[in-house]
Amino acid sequence: MAGQVNPDLAKERENASFNTQKLTNLLYGGAEKVRRRRYIESLAFSDPAYSGDEDPVFMSREELYSSQLKRALTTVQRVKELNITEEDLSTYRNAALSGGMPGLALTWIAFIPTILQQGTEEQKQKWLKPAQDLSIVGAYAQTEMGHGTFVRGLETTATYDPSTQEFVIHSPTLTSTKWWPGGLGKTSNYATVMAQLYTQGKCYGPHNFMVQIRSLEDHTPCPGVTLGDIGPKMEGNANDNGFARFDHVRIPRENMLMKFARVEPDGTYVQPASSKLAYSNMVYLRGTFVMSAAQALASASTIAVRYSCVRRQSEMKPGEPEPQILDYQTQQYKLFPQLAAAYAFWFAARFMTQQHASITGSMEKGDMSGLAELHALSAGLKSYTTAVMSAGIDVCRMSCGGHGYSHASGLPALFSTGTSLCTAEGENTVMMLQTARYLVKCFVQSQSGKTLSGTVAYLSAVQPSPVSGERNMSDLGTQVTAFQHRAARMVRHAALQMQTEMQKGKSREDAWNSCSVLLIKAAQAHVHSFVVRNFAETVQTVEVEESVRAVLTSLCQLYSLHGITEHAGDFLMDGYLTGRDIDAASSLLSAVLAQLRPDAVALVDAFDLHDKMLHSVLGRYDGRVYEHLYQWAQKSPLNKTEVHESYYKYLQPFLKSNRAKL
Amino acid sequence: MAGQVNPDLAKERENASFNTQKLTNLLYGGAEKVRRRRYIESLAFSDPAYSGDEDPVFMSREELYSSQLKRALTTVQRVKELNITEEDLSTYRNAALSGGMPGLALTWIAFIPTILQQGTEEQKQKWLKPAQDLSIVGAYAQTEMGHGTFVRGLETTATYDPSTQEFVIHSPTLTSTKWWPGGLGKTSNYATVMAQLYTQGKCYGPHNFMVQIRSLEDHTPCPGVTLGDIGPKMEGNANDNGFARFDHVRIPRENMLMKFARVEPDGTYVQPASSKLAYSNMVYLRGTFVMSAAQALASASTIAVRYSCVRRQSEMKPGEPEPQILDYQTQQYKLFPQLAAAYAFWFAARFMTQQHASITGSMEKGDMSGLAELHALSAGLKSYTTAVMSAGIDVCRMSCGGHGYSHASGLPALFSTGTSLCTAEGENTVMMLQTARYLVKCFVQSQSGKTLSGTVAYLSAVQPSPVSGERNMSDLGTQVTAFQHRAARMVRHAALQMQTEMQKGKSREDAWNSCSVLLIKAAQAHVHSFVVRNFAETVQTVEVEESVRAVLTSLCQLYSLHGITEHAGDFLMDGYLTGRDIDAASSLLSAVLAQLRPDAVALVDAFDLHDKMLHSVLGRYDGRVYEHLYQWAQKSPLNKTEVHESYYKYLQPFLKSNRAKL
Repeated sequence: MAGQVNPDLAKERENASFNTQKLTNLLYGGAEKVRRRRYIESLAFSDPAYSGDEDPVFMSREELYSSQLKRALTTVQRVKELNITEEDLSTYRNAALSGGMPGLALTWIAFIPTILQQGTEEQKQKWLKPAQDLSIVGAYAQTEMGHGTFVRGLETTATYDPSTQEFVIHSPTLTSTKWWPGGLGKTSNYATVMAQLYTQGKCYGPHNFMVQIRSLEDHTPCPGVTLGDIGPKMEGNANDNGFARFDHVRIPRENMLMKFARVEPDGTYVQPASSKLAYSNMVYLRGTFVMSAAQALASASTIAVRYSCVRRQSEMKPGEPEPQILDYQTQQYKLFPQLAAAYAFWFAARFMTQQHASITGSMEKGDMSGLAELHALSAGLKSYTTAVMSAGIDVCRMSCGGHGYSHASGLPALFSTGTSLCTAEGENTVMMLQTARYLVKCFVQSQSGKTLSGTVAYLSAVQPSPVSGERNMSDLGTQVTAFQHRAARMVRHAALQMQTEMQKGKSREDAWNSCSVLLIKAAQAHVHSFVVRNFAETVQTVEVEESVRAVLTSLCQLYSLHGITEHAGDFLMDGYLTGRDIDAASSLLSAVLAQLRPDAVALVDAFDLHDKMLHSVLGRYDGRVYEHLYQWAQKSPLNKTEVHESYYKYLQPFLKSNRAKL
Repeated sequence: MAGQVNPDLAKERENASFNTQKLTNLLYGGAEKVRRRRYIESLAFSDPAYSGDEDPVFMSREELYSSQLKRALTTVQRVKELNITEEDLSTYRNAALSGGMPGLALTWIAFIPTILQQGTEEQKQKWLKPAQDLSIVGAYAQTEMGHGTFVRGLETTATYDPSTQEFVIHSPTLTSTKWWPGGLGKTSNYATVMAQLYTQGKCYGPHNFMVQIRSLEDHTPCPGVTLGDIGPKMEGNANDNGFARFDHVRIPRENMLMKFARVEPDGTYVQPASSKLAYSNMVYLRGTFVMSAAQALASASTIAVRYSCVRRQSEMKPGEPEPQILDYQTQQYKLFPQLAAAYAFWFAARFMTQQHASITGSMEKGDMSGLAELHALSAGLKSYTTAVMSAGIDVCRMSCGGHGYSHASGLPALFSTGTSLCTAEGENTVMMLQTARYLVKCFVQSQSGKTLSGTVAYLSAVQPSPVSGERNMSDLGTQVTAFQHRAARMVRHAALQMQTEMQKGKSREDAWNSCSVLLIKAAQAHVHSFVVRNFAETVQTVEVEESVRAVLTSLCQLYSLHGITEHAGDFLMDGYLTGRDIDAASSLLSAVLAQLRPDAVALVDAFDLHDKMLHSVLGRYDGRVYEHLYQWAQKSPLNKTEVHESYYKYLQPFLKSNRAKL
């Protein structure tokens, strides 16, 4: 990241109040991990095999698909040649693919894990090595045209035929067409197919089956299988998200993934002992979404903050030079909450990882007690953090004005990629309602005298009555308590409203539906309070030098005060906070914006995101925005020729004939 | 729009409480206008010249540019052949271009209007006809790489040389490069170039100059002119938004557009008499943005509401069929506010058009009094409505789950196109601060005893003291008064805060900056209150049958109650509304959601948006979503062959060699 740096940006870095490297170390878990990560990334970034391609935004869909496929195959070779270990694998791949997700990647992130988690020892023996060595390429075919998050509604059937000991995989309706699975359309020759299991005349719900979908000889679809790409999406078009239809395709009984449930040769269904492990995996997966949300917001704020220090615009005082746009309070108010949320979510993700490890340990000892709570928190956190991230990237993009709208900024692609996380792996509204369901259950328990613990302890502990008198709104503890009070009040309000509706004669389901907006808001308030508390506890307890703690404390203040002022109504409703408290919070927030201003660039630098991962002319580390904007545009497909061919085809004849008439 | 209709959708239409056609007539200004509009659109929709093209999302950038250029040229021919009148022109073009904006279109919407508004009679004589007949193609080159909304900061210079009676157009810096103007990169051979006028050693600020940029013979750039496309953007890639650099390009003195300011042959600068007309044009242009915001939200809610009646998902009650997803309260809470906002903005746009006509009439009689108020309102409305629209489309997209993420839904493109309005023609934050500036001025005037009138009258009329006692939250008048109280309080608070900061020693500019977040929020509250009041007045006074008025009243209730509950803090801050009032508003809102549910499809149908304008498989009038989703995907470029060529190039050798090793 050497080279001449834009002087405004250089000055920002000189003036920071803390050592950026120390904060980077804290984020990544120590200096050694940072060093290692940079080294692994450098192996990819310096590899000419990955650097020849032009910017994906200049490519057609087909070029994009091909170039990313080629790139992914190269990583497979390099991983062997360079002896990349399991631990470094995702860092290496991510760097080599520049954060992209070609169709081939699904073999690693979905196909292989499914075999690992759901296959018997024999099945792993049979398919794991070919998949890992990439002599077969697999997709994970769950979602259908007609059903997504509601997995029980899937329509594809797997009917057991004991006479041949085969399953018949079939797509009985148009809406049962498998739709969306990554890599399914063109790349994969195998897929794990989720289908309703029928045996002995009874349906046992969705199970996973290993199905070969293309010939290993010539890659043509297998008999009875119809395959294709589902067409372009907002982003991720290097991936052949695909469709698949099955016309009575027969597979051996042994192709059902049978680690848990089994079907005996005679067709007898044997129930799984426990499905807790699947829950635990889901909790883990959703934890990774929280980190993805943090990283996406980190990327967007890195781009927008750096650009806002390079961009000078307008006139604050007559006759003075145009200010850096980050000097405008309105710009700080757009960007710093995103920056703060990136840190808040980063620490929340770390909490989830630690909790998951701890729960896994307990589960191995037979203690399942913590799982329900963590599951509820993970669903809500996934929903909350991805929603804030999606909207936040858009704020960052718009804060860059017109240039933010250009693909040169990297922000449109970052948004389009990021926002997919709001829908993927559990639609956000459905996820938040899962959290709400758990909270209502906890509330009812606490009403009947049970003391709650862990992340929901405050639901029974916090006094719902308003507190009077002056409050120090700058105290983190006061803020955390206020967030908890807000969440507890909203959970109580939603739960009681539900009870009222039922007393009026509504069924439980109708009451639930008619209160679901209240329930969602209550669950959001719960997750929000968790994020604030976890952020506050982290900055108070983490071992780090004081200058770093000081800036993190300001960030935490900002996150919390911004939350209070933006949701003021929730805190004012029952008089818990007063108008004066909100005014105080608002004034403090103004002060914190000004306080963070000189550290903003150092705070985004600390995320340590390489230019090759940011893909942004505006967010370059060296701040040389305008010259690179100009260079980037020269590569636009329309600039291949000085006069575009369509001139000769369409425009010239037209203009000439009109001119002749003049 | 004939053909078999999805039964769920058909049923929705049967059950509507009002006649859709009557509402359509109200929206478009009468049955005859609706008939005419449909007729003009049908001329385009039935024309085979426009129907051959594939969906733009399947095209490469170059194909897209060429195909839209061809299409635009065809419209020029057809407009002559069909004798399309001036009045019907934009309807016809919009239909023929399917709402698209090829580079050529800038000649009509920016180049010609600039000549018309800023050219002398002689200049109009010279350039208008060639431009209208399309023997020259023009761009409007204002924005530069380094400056957008802050026009005074433009760096391109036009220096008058009296010895040759020429202006020298020059790009002195990299950042002075013209950047973004539509059609500038490849299509245009002329441009009106905004440049800092220098004559007799003095700078007179930005003025417009007519500059030839490409040869009329072979379309190569003129000597001294460097041109190109600025590269792909979020959307609008049929347009060659371009860059231009000028290296001491000489143009005759007569090429300065001199209707207002002039430069005499000897170099004497003659000031314009009045710049009020330019203001008036700006007000008009921003009024069109409000209508664009309404239409974009109308499109998005049409798609999402129809799809939400076709899509069935999950399980509300055990054993019952999967419900239409619009039956979920959470889905209604996402979509109905967007639907209501589309109506609210539609009526606000109509108000602006009427006010502009009335003001123009007054201005012609020399009365400029209403201009400042309308200008302030137009800036704020442009900012507010486009921001709500942009976020609202995204809500609609996400409400469609995974399929909303596919380009088949039309929603990604609708969002990407719509969101550009937040930045174009005045960046939204800058716009809202203009409104704030006017409001603070009004507040100061009212403090010194002046009675305010028009849209700001309430700032002096409303009593800031809280009202006690029970309130009927379902009364539109009560709601409007609450919105006005909120805005008045926030304007006062921001203005007083500014005064406090100045009393503490801050300069006026620093105080303004440190209060700008408060100022923005106050101005938003003002605009919000205007939109609510105008909506309420419209539904109360418009001549229409009662069933239509009833549903519009519900929509207005929804818009208003949603605003109150989402911004509850603003109403609670000073105790104007109580927690009980907010709870009442929230309960009423739930009731209105349920009440509007059966009319939702009829309400979107009333926008009368043709499938050919919606570009959405999900939002089809006939609701046959799944079969058309399948058909649409077949056209994906990756599906041209059963086995993609990249298999032979990359995947096959790789798989085979790995298999050999097994």
